[in-house]
Amino acid sequence: MSVTYPRGFRASGTTAGLKPSGKTDLAVVVNDGPADAVAAVYTANRCKANPVLWSQQASADGTARAVVLNSGGANCYTGDYGYETTELTATRTAELLGTDASDVLVCSTGLIGVGGPEFREPILDTLPAALEAAAETPEAGAAAAEAIMTTDTVAKTATREGTAYRIGGMAKGAGMLAPGLATMLVVITTDAVVESGDLDIALRAATQKTFDRLDTDGCMSTNDTVIVMSSGASEHQADLVEFTRLLTEVCGELTAQLHTDAEGAGHDITITTRGAFSEQQAVDVSRAVARSNLFKAAVFGEDPNWGRVVAQVGTTDAEFDPQAIDVTFNGVPVCVGSAPAADPAEVLFDRRVVVEIDLHAGNFEASVWTSDLTHDYVEENSAYSS
Amino acid sequence: MSVTYPRGFRASGTTAGLKPSGKTDLAVVVNDGPADAVAAVYTANRCKANPVLWSQQASADGTARAVVLNSGGANCYTGDYGYETTELTATRTAELLGTDASDVLVCSTGLIGVGGPEFREPILDTLPAALEAAAETPEAGAAAAEAIMTTDTVAKTATREGTAYRIGGMAKGAGMLAPGLATMLVVITTDAVVESGDLDIALRAATQKTFDRLDTDGCMSTNDTVIVMSSGASEHQADLVEFTRLLTEVCGELTAQLHTDAEGAGHDITITTRGAFSEQQAVDVSRAVARSNLFKAAVFGEDPNWGRVVAQVGTTDAEFDPQAIDVTFNGVPVCVGSAPAADPAEVLFDRRVVVEIDLHAGNFEASVWTSDLTHDYVEENSAYSS
Repeated sequence: MSVTYPRGFRASGTTAGLKPSGKTDLAVVVNDGPADAVAAVYTANRCKANPVLWSQQASADGTARAVVLNSGGANCYTGDYGYETTELTATRTAELLGTDASDVLVCSTGLIGVGGPEFREPILDTLPAALEAAAETPEAGAAAAEAIMTTDTVAKTATREGTAYRIGGMAKGAGMLAPGLATMLVVITTDAVVESGDLDIALRAATQKTFDRLDTDGCMSTNDTVIVMSSGASEHQADLVEFTRLLTEVCGELTAQLHTDAEGAGHDITITTRGAFSEQQAVDVSRAVARSNLFKAAVFGEDPNWGRVVAQVGTTDAEFDPQAIDVTFNGVPVCVGSAPAADPAEVLFDRRVVVEIDLHAGNFEASVWTSDLTHDYVEENSAYSS
Repeated sequence: MSVTYPRGFRASGTTAGLKPSGKTDLAVVVNDGPADAVAAVYTANRCKANPVLWSQQASADGTARAVVLNSGGANCYTGDYGYETTELTATRTAELLGTDASDVLVCSTGLIGVGGPEFREPILDTLPAALEAAAETPEAGAAAAEAIMTTDTVAKTATREGTAYRIGGMAKGAGMLAPGLATMLVVITTDAVVESGDLDIALRAATQKTFDRLDTDGCMSTNDTVIVMSSGASEHQADLVEFTRLLTEVCGELTAQLHTDAEGAGHDITITTRGAFSEQQAVDVSRAVARSNLFKAAVFGEDPNWGRVVAQVGTTDAEFDPQAIDVTFNGVPVCVGSAPAADPAEVLFDRRVVVEIDLHAGNFEASVWTSDLTHDYVEENSAYSS
């Protein structure tokens, strides 16, 4: 399903040969219209990869006809040659589609520094076949979602049906998930009629509550991109409130899939801060805990170490009384009023771990999702470059 | 040597029985004067342990006669009972020394949440013996340095000799080393005549360039304390410039010892940022790299992954041109002008790893010290509470 679920979109996943494994590594998503509205959010990292630099410009006018995505190389910090590769990818795709290069967005994922001829030539050579294979079928959508995988163990897709229109999305990403997004590539399509300004409003509202709150290892990628494209093929003008809600649900479902598939994770941790003075402060506190290696290692060891939680709360600027903090692990109130309460031995652990912090400073709450710090995480990120 | 190296100080290390291992766990450092000047810096964590809350008040007037330090329990988030324990520790010590409780500082280290009667009673019961054992000998100074160890594998001490005066120090700390300090307890003594205002200036200057730049795992402790006491026993008025330089050297030497003994570290990493617009920006960039789990895991795997370095540089607000960043690993320029340069295979790894970043944006530089992310780190922090 994924990006071909709404009408007006073709997709494919083909093999350019960038991955040593020989698996598919080149995906295209083509918007056949009639509309060509687009909105996108990109990594907040100031060191941006070449495809991000290109796509930021190309999407600025709110129109796009296609997205080309490759795994097997991030094309980041690869010099002028690397930027030219992105430009050539867009130009060649545009020629084949009969459109302008500025209406083709490009996304790359893989190792930073990879982007020489051994990267450029296979992509350019495979583009004709990739576009020829592009189809409106569910299988074609699934193939695109598979072709963008790197260390992902499963393809990630989500769909929603609105009033006379559909939304479909695909995502990849396993490491480097952090605020301002992370080596996360997401393409979402809709056949609703939504002009690009509204698409942008809806997308920012959706990502702010979903992808932006996934912080598996605190590292921010150079390549993150989330794109939403409208074909308008339903000829139905979407209600912006409903559309934003459904888009947020699609983003939320993809976020949950990214969370569960995070590199080396042994536990999927939700950190919910309640009683905060503002939603932002709730996010800040949850995120501070999500970034503590000591806390994350404790969860790996199934130790409900509330001391490491409180210590992280104390590093933030949020409003709270240091003597009035409550912490629960999986529902067990191990710390009440900043003092030991229930016996930590009562906490039962399984794959999902929910830590709730009550600051007693207001009425706002927010959750951040993270992973534990495990031997597998160390292994995956030390034994292999990425 | 350590804290008994200058004249006018007695110390001891005794066993209260807080540690299951039965090793020494209670240290005292007594200033016999004639002066009783003190300065201290405490954790910037807003969730502070009871001994920190007490000692901040007690040291505010610039005078102190003694420091009592225990390992085997942090006395943090232990409620009113815990604060009373700290107060009783100071009161009992003051009675035995014939001074005021407000002239006794207290430091604790160990697990957060530990501070019940099983913690209070052994400390209070052992204080008379601890003070009786306090001696001016090098052995007594060494015993104090040992009694404050937790997961430290070696006792940490440093000394310097100035013009007619001496400085001696001891430190403990292995995990949670981070900005604003970390479960780091440091006591430094001097027999120089330095009034407390000058001690404070010298101490802040010294810690800002030493302890504050050690960031082994990004986690900030609730108990960090660095104390410097002057006995004035040399009757020599120290030159503040020389004193600050020597104090900075003592702090630097202790910092290096803490760095080398960081929990689970396989490599001792120095991250030096040059060509920065300001010293603070150089620190910010170095620290951002020091906090990347992906970078730290790569060093564990002896992978000179400059992409993960550049990605972290991009998360900062420092001045730089994203296309003009150089990165070397152990002297090999693997990234020049934000593009691949020397073959990463040329980088030779041993225990010490030096990463140099040149921003080409100014003339300032600064280093931050960190550790790699290893299986041992995960093991130590997941298998055992701390």
